[in-house]
Amino acid sequence: MPGGGEFAFIDWLRGRTPADPRVLIGPGDDTAALKLSSGATCLVTTDMLLEGSCFKLSEAGPRLVGRKAMAVNLSDIAAMAGRPVAAVVSVGLPRAGGRGLAEELYLGLREAADAFATAIVGGDTNSWDGPLVISVTILGEATERGPVPRSGARPGDWLLVTGPLGGSILGRHLTFTPRVREALQLRERVELHAMIDVSDGLAADVNHLCEESHCGAVLRAADIPIHTDVYKLNDGRPPLEHALGDGEDFELVCAVSPDEGRQLLATQPIAGITLVHIGECVESGLWLEEQQQRRALPPIGYVHSLK
Amino acid sequence: MPGGGEFAFIDWLRGRTPADPRVLIGPGDDTAALKLSSGATCLVTTDMLLEGSCFKLSEAGPRLVGRKAMAVNLSDIAAMAGRPVAAVVSVGLPRAGGRGLAEELYLGLREAADAFATAIVGGDTNSWDGPLVISVTILGEATERGPVPRSGARPGDWLLVTGPLGGSILGRHLTFTPRVREALQLRERVELHAMIDVSDGLAADVNHLCEESHCGAVLRAADIPIHTDVYKLNDGRPPLEHALGDGEDFELVCAVSPDEGRQLLATQPIAGITLVHIGECVESGLWLEEQQQRRALPPIGYVHSLK
Repeated sequence: MPGGGEFAFIDWLRGRTPADPRVLIGPGDDTAALKLSSGATCLVTTDMLLEGSCFKLSEAGPRLVGRKAMAVNLSDIAAMAGRPVAAVVSVGLPRAGGRGLAEELYLGLREAADAFATAIVGGDTNSWDGPLVISVTILGEATERGPVPRSGARPGDWLLVTGPLGGSILGRHLTFTPRVREALQLRERVELHAMIDVSDGLAADVNHLCEESHCGAVLRAADIPIHTDVYKLNDGRPPLEHALGDGEDFELVCAVSPDEGRQLLATQPIAGITLVHIGECVESGLWLEEQQQRRALPPIGYVHSLK
Repeated sequence: MPGGGEFAFIDWLRGRTPADPRVLIGPGDDTAALKLSSGATCLVTTDMLLEGSCFKLSEAGPRLVGRKAMAVNLSDIAAMAGRPVAAVVSVGLPRAGGRGLAEELYLGLREAADAFATAIVGGDTNSWDGPLVISVTILGEATERGPVPRSGARPGDWLLVTGPLGGSILGRHLTFTPRVREALQLRERVELHAMIDVSDGLAADVNHLCEESHCGAVLRAADIPIHTDVYKLNDGRPPLEHALGDGEDFELVCAVSPDEGRQLLATQPIAGITLVHIGECVESGLWLEEQQQRRALPPIGYVHSLK
């Protein structure tokens, strides 16, 4: 991103991170993967939500904020086709909110954690004069087939998405169900070359996947599933733009071989979702194909604002 | 604590946390311990530092804040006699600080992490209009002898501390070295029944250890080692009060059998530190013994301010 941004900073950080044989997957993926001395692979991911920046407390209420703080981390575990195990939670609570705020927040956290058998095993609870801050870290385990990184896509791979996109701001960004189960089912059935969850926006996240995989991608405009929420927005912007750039859909995009892609589309084996083929990986560039024309697609979506 | 507090809230939380066979040690200890499906025991701990509440950015500077944010978590791993493996870091950066603030913060984090071979494997970097917030989570491993909980002390145990206490506000709260190595060396030599790091204050932390162990303790005033910093404070308060209540010393207090305690004191086998025998565990209560008089010791120290 011009002028810096979270991703430029991650580059800076990666350049200063020494190689470590215990680190199978480090900064730059949805989740890090560690090799413990027992040989076990442990996944770990963290996300922080900040009042006023990531949510409006007066609109969402503390329970949905807690739910979201847990669910975004579960979605990062899903993006690796991992199994969540346990979570720790740090919070900075505005003094004015009192204990009621803390309890509602934890009930929301528990709701999302319980739905995926994730134990909340510890945390750090602070009161302060600032706004609500909540940071969740989830530990998970990889399946026997290993974690699915962002980096394994190759030219020719099909890109599939697990559901329709856009308009999450109408509420789905708070109430979505992380695709933990669907990812595990996909992992059982096919060889997932790469996977990412759509948090920043489809174009931005496909771009992240391509950067890590050192390839490009072409998305086909007519095939991108647009969520019905987009049509309720009525803001005059083209629906496709919302589907490409809104973000916080928390659907998964995966790269698979064309053969396995065809098989998945023909059988649709994952209960509750319809996989959609939205494009292919290519040698380089990010492209949108519309009426047989291919044009450069800017990686629109949420711009991490570290300047 | 009267009127609630973090510990009352942890009780509320524990009462609502279902038993889970994967959770060996849950909320209420320095660090949680998980049994992964491979059989490995994984430690996880988190701590959040909030500007204005936990540090003054203008006084400490971002590098020491980063260092401390990592070191307090390393100290929690030390309190279990664990080996740190990897860390993830979430930050909320005040926009005005720019990239320079972020870089200094990460250099401080790396300094503390590198000193204990802890890889920083991921994180979440956000800019916002609020003050600096930093949340670190560390994953560790237990040694073959298992993690040392707060809960294993029994009446008759000796209480030992790894160094002098009080006056950390003069700078040691930012520059301390977590007792990771010392804890591992102790664990090799003796059976540690229980251990805690002194973060809230000696009296408060011994009280936490006793609560988890369902026992009491008597501390002997004349034996509590007082740090030379205390005498520089010149605030008219008795030096012992500082040693008992200041907190953020990040020394370790452990409970061992009298036999092993005697042996440790006679041989002082841990390079760089002098173990001091400060008291014993008793059936109940928290007591201070001064000139052959035993009086109730309030669990003074940092009061977690969740009201």
